[in-house]
Amino acid sequence: MSRTAARRDALRATAAERGLDAVLVTNLLNVRYLTGFTGSNGALLVRTDGGDLFGTDGRYTTQAGTQVPDVELLVDRTTVPALAGEAVRRGTGRLGYESHDLTVDGLRALERVLADAAAGSTVAELVSVRRAVEAQRAVKDDEEIESLRRACAVADRALAELAAEGALRPGRTELQVGRELDARMLALGAEAPSFETIVAAGANSAIPHHRPDTTELRAGDFLKLDFGATVDGYHSDMTRTLVLGHAADWQREIYDLVAASQAAGRAALAVGADVVAVDSAARDVIVAAGHGEHFTHGLGHGVGLEIHEAPGIGQLGAGSLAAGMAVTVEPGVYLPGHGGVRIEDTLIVTDDEPELLTLTSKELLVL
Amino acid sequence: MSRTAARRDALRATAAERGLDAVLVTNLLNVRYLTGFTGSNGALLVRTDGGDLFGTDGRYTTQAGTQVPDVELLVDRTTVPALAGEAVRRGTGRLGYESHDLTVDGLRALERVLADAAAGSTVAELVSVRRAVEAQRAVKDDEEIESLRRACAVADRALAELAAEGALRPGRTELQVGRELDARMLALGAEAPSFETIVAAGANSAIPHHRPDTTELRAGDFLKLDFGATVDGYHSDMTRTLVLGHAADWQREIYDLVAASQAAGRAALAVGADVVAVDSAARDVIVAAGHGEHFTHGLGHGVGLEIHEAPGIGQLGAGSLAAGMAVTVEPGVYLPGHGGVRIEDTLIVTDDEPELLTLTSKELLVL
Repeated sequence: MSRTAARRDALRATAAERGLDAVLVTNLLNVRYLTGFTGSNGALLVRTDGGDLFGTDGRYTTQAGTQVPDVELLVDRTTVPALAGEAVRRGTGRLGYESHDLTVDGLRALERVLADAAAGSTVAELVSVRRAVEAQRAVKDDEEIESLRRACAVADRALAELAAEGALRPGRTELQVGRELDARMLALGAEAPSFETIVAAGANSAIPHHRPDTTELRAGDFLKLDFGATVDGYHSDMTRTLVLGHAADWQREIYDLVAASQAAGRAALAVGADVVAVDSAARDVIVAAGHGEHFTHGLGHGVGLEIHEAPGIGQLGAGSLAAGMAVTVEPGVYLPGHGGVRIEDTLIVTDDEPELLTLTSKELLVL
Repeated sequence: MSRTAARRDALRATAAERGLDAVLVTNLLNVRYLTGFTGSNGALLVRTDGGDLFGTDGRYTTQAGTQVPDVELLVDRTTVPALAGEAVRRGTGRLGYESHDLTVDGLRALERVLADAAAGSTVAELVSVRRAVEAQRAVKDDEEIESLRRACAVADRALAELAAEGALRPGRTELQVGRELDARMLALGAEAPSFETIVAAGANSAIPHHRPDTTELRAGDFLKLDFGATVDGYHSDMTRTLVLGHAADWQREIYDLVAASQAAGRAALAVGADVVAVDSAARDVIVAAGHGEHFTHGLGHGVGLEIHEAPGIGQLGAGSLAAGMAVTVEPGVYLPGHGGVRIEDTLIVTDDEPELLTLTSKELLVL
């Protein structure tokens, strides 16, 4: 059985538990996860009794045949309402849908289809499945973990090459470095950067999500790089903070503090660990050093087909970790106007030690 | 007055015409268009009586201050419901919202806020504004047109450089060429490719939206390149079809046919022209040559902050062209199993001749 068929079966089991006859999946990343389809328009009907149906429009007939060979195909310009109509014709009573994804207009269109179909024998009812597929996606299977490993390896290697070639030197601009990092990741096989690459030099490193600009790298400054590569649709996420030239005492001090916090966060990644407790494990180190107010964001997040997905790891999170979850651990200390340090890895939670996917050294690199 | 302030005033006039007290804009590209904000979470309340409000969360406080200095800021984790609550507190009765963008869950959250607020003096009513902002976006202002010119220039130059360097030669793969084109566009200042670059060699050129794979370029084959660059968030879109080595008669024949069709389509771009008639002007040329069934898609589409936006130019389209619209003209003839040709430009509709933004030659390039 293919990975995607196994994922559809898992969703089928969820649907059965909830007393649904079928689930209409409209979120395009959820559709990709459950079918392998990478086009820009597709939806999936997973039926509790089997006999699933994949819908797309005429542009993607060939691609659907190649990427989704094991699901019956429905080609229709309207796609989602067409699938709903077919669901009703095949006897669906309670139809699950994704209320966090479907727009108000989309729901109206479904309601019209069901009202028309109600002229027949079956009256269908729409029930939100909430984030059932996202919850499933939080735990990665072997194939997904392999894609994440490759995505992280591309980012590792891109940074190593740039550092080895002397591309990270005083006088260059944040934008130049960011573009080279992006280009190098593409050359190494990334489909795209995972997100807008952050290159933050000097005082800009104190801005958690600084957009690269024409600021020049200078000797003695921090250089914070937060970036990732997308491979097979899966995102890597890594932050490293370097010093150019010579590290001052205050720089070493906050670097060592963030590194200790990050190590504590990684050590707390265990099956069953509460996400709030994981955040606290790392945060307490920074708070104890008197820098609590300078760590202004959550510790980490799940990563996969989206750069931010379940689980959220922070004081406002809920739930606990499971084996196979892919998460980031990324504490930071930001001193406004001076500079900041963030150290971030992507890891897989396992029954044993977490598997580290971003392998670039976390020793303070002085270039 | 800034461009974004003028755009907000235009939306304000639409809201007043429709008897709304305010419009809550949630579509992130519409928010960007109306404010200049480029973060990943933001919404805008445009009030008929003025006193607009921009909402985002704490991550973007600084960025909002820089990018949206002229709109009052509301920082709140819930952003959209928070703006709606504030709208009611400021006396909004009829509140427009974007039913094509807001999710079902998002609407429920708004309804809860309004029900709570109804305990006070004002009872607010939610009214869909449909695609009011997208309709406004279809006509570009000077600043947007300048961004589109730059985006098209990057794509032109990237292709010229690759061709000059001999990168488009037999033995190379589609994937290699696609990645080099992407990297070159980034190096030339693009923020990103406009979409997944299409490189289609030989028989693959007959697939309208082929994904680049390890197929090698071969002498005597067509090479179809459909790509674009994003600059300031604006997308360029261009297709050129080349021949490697020597062009056979059948290749010249369909190339000349598509070129004639494309010229007819460009010539039909005029203020007031019906989009169906524009499509027909180009399509009739191909139909008359007996290849109607091999032109399987619409003639073109609007382009701007999205790669596909209003107006659609095709037999299923509706409406007419206006000065300042940015559109593509991209007929194609695809002979399954043999090869295909598409020629596509991005142009601006004007009161005079359309302005051509993609300047790469449309002579059949034999490399």
